[in-house]
Amino acid sequence: MDKKWDLVIIGGGPGGYVSAIRGAQLKKKVLLIEEHKIGGTCMNYGCIPAKYLLHQTKIYKDLKENRNLEGPLEEMRCDWKRVQKERSRVVERLVKGLEFLIRKNGVEMTKGQGFMNENGQVSVRVDEGEEKVVEAEKVILATGSSPAELPFLKPNGKEIITSREALELDEVPRKLLVIGAGAIGLEIGTIYQRLGSEVTILEILPTILPGSDIETVKYLERILKAKGLNIHTHMRLESSHVNAGKVIAQGTQLESQSPFEFEADKVLLAVGRNPNSEGLSAKDTPLSLDERGSVSANSLLETNLPGVYAIGDLIGGKLLAHKASHEGLIAAENAFGKKTEMNYAALPLAVFTDPEFSSVGLTEEEATEKGIKIQKGVLSLQASGRALTLGRQEGMVKILADERDRVIGAHILAPNASEFIPEITLAMSKGLRIQDISSSIHIHPTLSEAVMEAAMKTKNEAIHVLND
Amino acid sequence: MDKKWDLVIIGGGPGGYVSAIRGAQLKKKVLLIEEHKIGGTCMNYGCIPAKYLLHQTKIYKDLKENRNLEGPLEEMRCDWKRVQKERSRVVERLVKGLEFLIRKNGVEMTKGQGFMNENGQVSVRVDEGEEKVVEAEKVILATGSSPAELPFLKPNGKEIITSREALELDEVPRKLLVIGAGAIGLEIGTIYQRLGSEVTILEILPTILPGSDIETVKYLERILKAKGLNIHTHMRLESSHVNAGKVIAQGTQLESQSPFEFEADKVLLAVGRNPNSEGLSAKDTPLSLDERGSVSANSLLETNLPGVYAIGDLIGGKLLAHKASHEGLIAAENAFGKKTEMNYAALPLAVFTDPEFSSVGLTEEEATEKGIKIQKGVLSLQASGRALTLGRQEGMVKILADERDRVIGAHILAPNASEFIPEITLAMSKGLRIQDISSSIHIHPTLSEAVMEAAMKTKNEAIHVLND
Repeated sequence: MDKKWDLVIIGGGPGGYVSAIRGAQLKKKVLLIEEHKIGGTCMNYGCIPAKYLLHQTKIYKDLKENRNLEGPLEEMRCDWKRVQKERSRVVERLVKGLEFLIRKNGVEMTKGQGFMNENGQVSVRVDEGEEKVVEAEKVILATGSSPAELPFLKPNGKEIITSREALELDEVPRKLLVIGAGAIGLEIGTIYQRLGSEVTILEILPTILPGSDIETVKYLERILKAKGLNIHTHMRLESSHVNAGKVIAQGTQLESQSPFEFEADKVLLAVGRNPNSEGLSAKDTPLSLDERGSVSANSLLETNLPGVYAIGDLIGGKLLAHKASHEGLIAAENAFGKKTEMNYAALPLAVFTDPEFSSVGLTEEEATEKGIKIQKGVLSLQASGRALTLGRQEGMVKILADERDRVIGAHILAPNASEFIPEITLAMSKGLRIQDISSSIHIHPTLSEAVMEAAMKTKNEAIHVLND
Repeated sequence: MDKKWDLVIIGGGPGGYVSAIRGAQLKKKVLLIEEHKIGGTCMNYGCIPAKYLLHQTKIYKDLKENRNLEGPLEEMRCDWKRVQKERSRVVERLVKGLEFLIRKNGVEMTKGQGFMNENGQVSVRVDEGEEKVVEAEKVILATGSSPAELPFLKPNGKEIITSREALELDEVPRKLLVIGAGAIGLEIGTIYQRLGSEVTILEILPTILPGSDIETVKYLERILKAKGLNIHTHMRLESSHVNAGKVIAQGTQLESQSPFEFEADKVLLAVGRNPNSEGLSAKDTPLSLDERGSVSANSLLETNLPGVYAIGDLIGGKLLAHKASHEGLIAAENAFGKKTEMNYAALPLAVFTDPEFSSVGLTEEEATEKGIKIQKGVLSLQASGRALTLGRQEGMVKILADERDRVIGAHILAPNASEFIPEITLAMSKGLRIQDISSSIHIHPTLSEAVMEAAMKTKNEAIHVLND
């Protein structure tokens, strides 16, 4: 660890480990510093365990709702303890595989808390008190984020929990109250609702998934409510207390200004995440932070400190593992000679509810705000033969183009929406037109045909629905 | 029906009905002639019912293999009669919806057998003997195809059946013998194997899905065999007879030249399909056919008869519903002023086995044959976090580029492969490069990330596997 490194990376999540491997591919000597577990929140406590639990509970729910089975269906139960054991095995296997890859690429790993010291170099706090300086030519900061708290609702690891604990519960709570209807709240709410929990989700803003295309998420909200999730928007939480193992949460419904009160066995705090920027740099040579505490990085991902880059949740924007990974590639390449600017115009996202919500580019509201004369094509999955064969006709594909026919955004509610949005991401990143999508041949019968047909709809040329 | 039509279409399958609706969108007076059922083979007897049965049996199989359930799993049965009833309801609903759309678009439909008469006009045989002439400015022929037969194995509707009957069986056969390991044979074999049939599939050629990328389909063959499908290649069938409700099929294994014999309750004949071109034109003014009996159409989809276009299975090439539909759009537009040439370079296909096989563009063998210096990236789903959360790590993404980095083909084995191949189809139809795919941000965790990473692998820049 004493030699001089070409590249030192602080944080081994999906941003950090990707930049480490790319650095090694560029023939650089790379040190990756991780305080807890390689793979970060995404692999250990976030996306990956959530997706495993979503998949398993989906199978269980599909089973319970299957009308084409004979036998004692009501006696079938989900073996939750076993699912949880498998979940931790899945995570372990991924982490092990990742450590193998990192080593095989020639990246060195060290455990400890890295930070920028007063000389503009990296120090690692290995044990309490013990610190080591690491000489680095270039540094990438990738320390991620942590769940935000509310002043009157602090996680206690028992009744009041964050996503991390919520994904590792041994028992299915009878009543689960979720604060925040973002991706995390909706996914975890879905998991436990499928297992029989009475799930209530409170959101302070007027819609679920705030900031998303309103037409699309309003439709999703209707679908999720019909599936039994108790979703309430305009709900401002104001106080909470724990009493005999139950949490009482109180606040005001902002439209009616009437008070509300909910009781639950567990409360999941899912009101956003804060950047892990505290203590990341010495007082004398501070990193520039924005008002939210995110490290400020320019479009080349450079910070104010020379040779120091920052990526991922730490720099704000959309908190997505694949954003961090992509930034990791760009930062590592920029550190050693390239000058690629990050472009967030074609950054897709997904929420793994049922149906999935997947989105890329501008919402209808954002496009209108920008003064774009939009062309819009919306296709209901009612028009999809594939959806009918799957018995899954709830959903839609919405695609937006500007006046020159360039694709500027898409918002999808469909099974596997996350798998077929890449076509639109690619179209957007290459500046393609709506006609490029509608004239590309799509396999029948697939759900992705709905993308093609939504594109046709913008020109009133759809076949399987009536045009305007 | 006596008025003069702008456009008359013979055949209401996925080629014919799409061209009819597009003709109407072009403000033309359109007549659609269909002998049997609107929607054609695909909707009534092919893709759609197959996909419904595949989905239902998949749910059943997932249930039976689920180790995370508690309860009397062994007592759970698939209610096959109910599944079949639902299958016919799904088809009925699609057909009704389609008839509604066709009518609402102002297309007139008539039942009967259409053909080109000796005056180069369309005649319709309505009932036995009764014929009516239909005056048309332009004609599109879209009569589709029918299952091919073998001289010594003729469907009798009981023991020896075609795909149509195989999808409508009331009872699950104990032993099913499938002749032909193409898409139809593999899909139907999969359906009944999931329900407990002992399924044997015989293919005369050296690989399943002949003509496909060999590395990919050899892998698929291994997977399907491991799931319990008895697949034998190099098997030439030579004779068959029915005895006491059983079929005995005999032939020669071509590698060893040793004889084989199989007994089965049902034999599915799935050795290809023939174009429905017989009797489609009068002797005096014949349509040009190729040696296989397909109607010859040029790249504008024009036949040798003036003003007469032909599309879909009738003209040969790959027998795919979405090829027919796309040709339907092009033919209708070309009939009224456009001059768009069909381009089959980016025509994708899928086989809905488990995992799905999906493919677009050149195979590795075709590319090598053409003298292209290929760049190849293969990514195993072992490297996919999403695959691990789904418990579905069998599969791969293979992507091929030419020396100028242009994407020329892709071959995928993965759950939902058919849903994420559109990105590659689009890339190919727009002449994009491998770097356009690898630099487009893909959502984590998804299976479609494997497309991005296979693209990275062509340049030895993959992150989640070791490069060469």
